[in-house]
Amino acid sequence: MKLVRYTLLWVKVLLLLVASKAQSQGIETYKYTPSEVVTIHSKVLNEDRKVYIHCPKSDSSDVNKRFPVLYLLDGENHFELLSQYVDYLSRPDVSVMPKIIVVGIPNTKRVRDLTPTQSILDYEGKPDTSAWYKSSGGNGLFFEFIKTELMPIIDSNYKTKQYKIFAGHSFGGISSINCMLTHPDMFDAYIAVSPSFWWDNEYLLKLTEKKLKSGSTLNKKLFYCNGNEGGSNSFFHKALLKFDSIIAGKKIVGLEYKYNYYPYEMHMTVPIVAYLDALRFIFKE
Amino acid sequence: MKLVRYTLLWVKVLLLLVASKAQSQGIETYKYTPSEVVTIHSKVLNEDRKVYIHCPKSDSSDVNKRFPVLYLLDGENHFELLSQYVDYLSRPDVSVMPKIIVVGIPNTKRVRDLTPTQSILDYEGKPDTSAWYKSSGGNGLFFEFIKTELMPIIDSNYKTKQYKIFAGHSFGGISSINCMLTHPDMFDAYIAVSPSFWWDNEYLLKLTEKKLKSGSTLNKKLFYCNGNEGGSNSFFHKALLKFDSIIAGKKIVGLEYKYNYYPYEMHMTVPIVAYLDALRFIFKE
Repeated sequence: MKLVRYTLLWVKVLLLLVASKAQSQGIETYKYTPSEVVTIHSKVLNEDRKVYIHCPKSDSSDVNKRFPVLYLLDGENHFELLSQYVDYLSRPDVSVMPKIIVVGIPNTKRVRDLTPTQSILDYEGKPDTSAWYKSSGGNGLFFEFIKTELMPIIDSNYKTKQYKIFAGHSFGGISSINCMLTHPDMFDAYIAVSPSFWWDNEYLLKLTEKKLKSGSTLNKKLFYCNGNEGGSNSFFHKALLKFDSIIAGKKIVGLEYKYNYYPYEMHMTVPIVAYLDALRFIFKE
Repeated sequence: MKLVRYTLLWVKVLLLLVASKAQSQGIETYKYTPSEVVTIHSKVLNEDRKVYIHCPKSDSSDVNKRFPVLYLLDGENHFELLSQYVDYLSRPDVSVMPKIIVVGIPNTKRVRDLTPTQSILDYEGKPDTSAWYKSSGGNGLFFEFIKTELMPIIDSNYKTKQYKIFAGHSFGGISSINCMLTHPDMFDAYIAVSPSFWWDNEYLLKLTEKKLKSGSTLNKKLFYCNGNEGGSNSFFHKALLKFDSIIAGKKIVGLEYKYNYYPYEMHMTVPIVAYLDALRFIFKE
């Protein structure tokens, strides 16, 4: 009797389960436009590096079409966002920019790769003995990796155009600007979102002053910005104003630049709005 | 001799190919946080409907945690963007909003489902005999599908909290507001991005005026906005100002609302900035 009751109960439970899910016909995995992860052994950096690559959907009407490439620092943070923006903004019914390839470079040793000089000074200019400061100053080797190892692989395996953009946030922002100043042959456009100009006693502001000759020619596009990183009286904001004033003062021929200030964004949300505006600035007609 | 020369040439080509790709160690597929596509047979709409579902990564420290759900119209357009925003904004180092589930509803017959009334009047109030206008007015049945078929499936298969958000753009925007006015039991918060208030001679503005009683209580959050859709003198912009003034005038108790105007965004780019701001508005502390 007990057994019959239990059996009936279970039949009821099963029937209920079947009934409540009757309308759900099937579950599949959502298909994102696929991106790739390529592992490269870098002799320059003496380590394996992964890079993320997002290509436009192939266009059957023009299979040989080639695309500009955006190299993005902090790939683990903003690769999906940038890929999403590019896909959406290049849709025929949005049509704000052309299709481009996004190459996201995630970090292994972030401070080592994304700083222009070896320095142990923190953002207030005080010595900091943490291990990560000691490893700093690797921009040069990192750019060599990008130029001599990464770019040839991207160019030989994907349908790239010559036009290249270098984009970074925070330490990635100073890396982008340092690359423009020290290796101007590598990229055509630069995005520096909330660059950490405090690095090494404003080293990069001094370098900008020194490297950019008044009235010289530099056919580039340059987008830089900051958010609310301590308010409008903060060092962060003042450094951006200083950089903007240096750039404006140099009257560089061929340099198209734009400075955006986002007072309602904090350091980690600036990239969301800035990368959108930067893409539109670089690809405006 | 010719054969030897050709063979040597080919060996050289092969060696070059191997050399140039020697640094690329392997290619894998990039792993997005997986989303699902669930197919539901809707008896209400008498058709199969697919929905896209993006869930937060499971948190091993709290496997029973439950999440608010955002139901998003025009799923084929903005599901990936919203999922991306939610993932990024809910990261511990960004921490602007909690993790939520995103349910994207792609269209089958968009005009049928996303309009409040049957009308053949275009945005200038002139009759339009295209077939798609004739099918309009299906908001009621569409809300019934969401309430009686979709929501039970989502609630029984995913770790949902009670809190629900309804988000739409353009026709999706008027659907969201119409749902608040006619089925206030279904959602807790509403996002209307560039709602097409021109529909049926401003039907929805009249309905808002009629349905919302001055000084009544409605514990909801409501975000609405528009971009540059013909300039500040356009009908589009004026309709949003009118809606904003109706909402403000009613002094509804418990209704938290926010109107944003994005003069630098066009109709198809408004969602990019608006959904970001809307999520922050709804989840602000």
